Amino acid sequence: MQWYFVAALLTILTSSQGILTTLSQSNGHYTYDYGTVPFLAEFFKLVVSSLLLWRERRVSPSTRMTTEWKSVRLFVVPSVIYLFHNNVQFATLTYVDTSTYQIMGNLKIVTTGILFRIFLRRKLSNLRWMAIVLLAIGTTTSQIKACGEASCDSLFSAPIQGYMLGILSACLSALAGVYTEFLMKKNSDSLYWQNVQLYTFGVIFNMARLLVDDFRSGFERGPWWSRIFNGYSLTTWMVVLNLGSTGLLVSWLMKYADNIVKVYSTSMAMLLTTVISVYLFSFKPTLQLFLGIIVCMMSLHMYFAPPNMLVDMPSPTKAATENLKEISVERKTDS
Amino acid sequence: MQWYFVAALLTILTSSQGILTTLSQSNGHYTYDYGTVPFLAEFFKLVVSSLLLWRERRVSPSTRMTTEWKSVRLFVVPSVIYLFHNNVQFATLTYVDTSTYQIMGNLKIVTTGILFRIFLRRKLSNLRWMAIVLLAIGTTTSQIKACGEASCDSLFSAPIQGYMLGILSACLSALAGVYTEFLMKKNSDSLYWQNVQLYTFGVIFNMARLLVDDFRSGFERGPWWSRIFNGYSLTTWMVVLNLGSTGLLVSWLMKYADNIVKVYSTSMAMLLTTVISVYLFSFKPTLQLFLGIIVCMMSLHMYFAPPNMLVDMPSPTKAATENLKEISVERKTDS
Repeated sequence: MQWYFVAALLTILTSSQGILTTLSQSNGHYTYDYGTVPFLAEFFKLVVSSLLLWRERRVSPSTRMTTEWKSVRLFVVPSVIYLFHNNVQFATLTYVDTSTYQIMGNLKIVTTGILFRIFLRRKLSNLRWMAIVLLAIGTTTSQIKACGEASCDSLFSAPIQGYMLGILSACLSALAGVYTEFLMKKNSDSLYWQNVQLYTFGVIFNMARLLVDDFRSGFERGPWWSRIFNGYSLTTWMVVLNLGSTGLLVSWLMKYADNIVKVYSTSMAMLLTTVISVYLFSFKPTLQLFLGIIVCMMSLHMYFAPPNMLVDMPSPTKAATENLKEISVERKTDS
Repeated sequence: MQWYFVAALLTILTSSQGILTTLSQSNGHYTYDYGTVPFLAEFFKLVVSSLLLWRERRVSPSTRMTTEWKSVRLFVVPSVIYLFHNNVQFATLTYVDTSTYQIMGNLKIVTTGILFRIFLRRKLSNLRWMAIVLLAIGTTTSQIKACGEASCDSLFSAPIQGYMLGILSACLSALAGVYTEFLMKKNSDSLYWQNVQLYTFGVIFNMARLLVDDFRSGFERGPWWSRIFNGYSLTTWMVVLNLGSTGLLVSWLMKYADNIVKVYSTSMAMLLTTVISVYLFSFKPTLQLFLGIIVCMMSLHMYFAPPNMLVDMPSPTKAATENLKEISVERKTDS
């Protein structure tokens, strides 16, 4: 399978995620406990990965699986980072409004590039760095509030702690991505086995989180397992399946492509969601949405197009080959 | 003289132009007839160019000057295009508000690229085309109205004729630039002689325009020459000198650099004016101004940085040379 098919599919599914979540609400409220959705999605991913691993092992008994605890325990790290991340997110939102929070979320694109460079030691050309910054600018531009929208005055008037936490949040989110890529690529273990480890910890952490929330609310609404499917509609189940599927696609990309591909997929998904919302929820399209989309498209082209398509440079191998030909002709004339 | 010094000077002078014009007003109104400013600037350019031509001819009597009418008459074309352009501008403003008009003005960047390609047959790499589009997007982004500003609802709600005229205006403006570049480069005539021809027609057309305005107003305020210096302050004279000097720099760039360099200079000037206004006139800086500036800076780097700095490609000549070396070593071993 080509990585760009997977990336395109991820874009489509991620953008439907936003739409489905909106559709699953009634009158702007959730009729179900939203906290149960990530848990079920994690569970879905674990089941799917286990089945695929079982099938893979039947077909080829030589499937690589590192089962030492020294290796397995590393798969808890992404879950721990996400746990931190969730708490930082929560703290950030006590300082900044949701628009500012959303705008700051785009920082994640740049921090991913930086951590990708530092931890995975992947060099990026000058042009690719510019493409990454442009992607962040494009998504930010598309999110600038239209004139007259109420909450816009408060943008960037929050206390400094809010911005520091926003930056920390962007770093943690990037770190989780980069660390997962490291895990997936560190050996040639089966992707499904790696997934099983990742999602087992995911399920455990999600369950723990639901339980902590229950303790915090003093079991007012009973334990989480007693109300897990309450108010679930067909759309809610689609939200769960969608979230699970995007997770599986991200895992695939982490192993066979990289974090930057994932960042492009999800950024494009955000723009796609906005465009679809223009039609579906009659959002008013703005000039900045249009400008942001063009910037992101150019960034995509800058990052992924082959360099010789961008700069009209004769490819060095071609130049070298032609040179060789000429010289071999000369040598023939010599002899 | 290096073209980038001239371009930087043009940026500084063009950005002071906006500031000086604002400073020359009192309570937001002109105390002088603004129509006389371009005429005096044109006159200033003619005098300066004539003096420089006279000096050049004294120093080197072989100064090249094509004086055939067949060549001289071509220099009327830019003036004629500007005459059309002024009228189209005027017509556009009857359909669209000034914000929309200003935003549409950035189209000129793209049309200049297109006419530059078509009429001057200059090929631009894929990356340079993207840089040009990004420059237009960056300047547009920086001009998006902040939330709460009054006139923003009317943006892009004008009748279609307004947009058609806006596009025509962008094409005419680009055409004048590209045609001037063609004039300046078509032979090795002295720059000063080319300027004298250009500005002689400029002075004539500006005088004609003032006269037409007088006729239109039925000579209410007397003929233009009787009130030409009325209400002129020191700042007004600085506006005139500044406008004249930027004109001379543009001529120089048209001969020794090109239209794209000019477009970058004036776009950067626009951003610089906005930034200075933040300090000088306590404009409120917006997120979009910040984003627009970054986009324009990256566009500048993309357009002017050497391609091998951008894409980490071994330069083909270097590769070829190394290949040659290797082969010559082989040949030595052969013999």
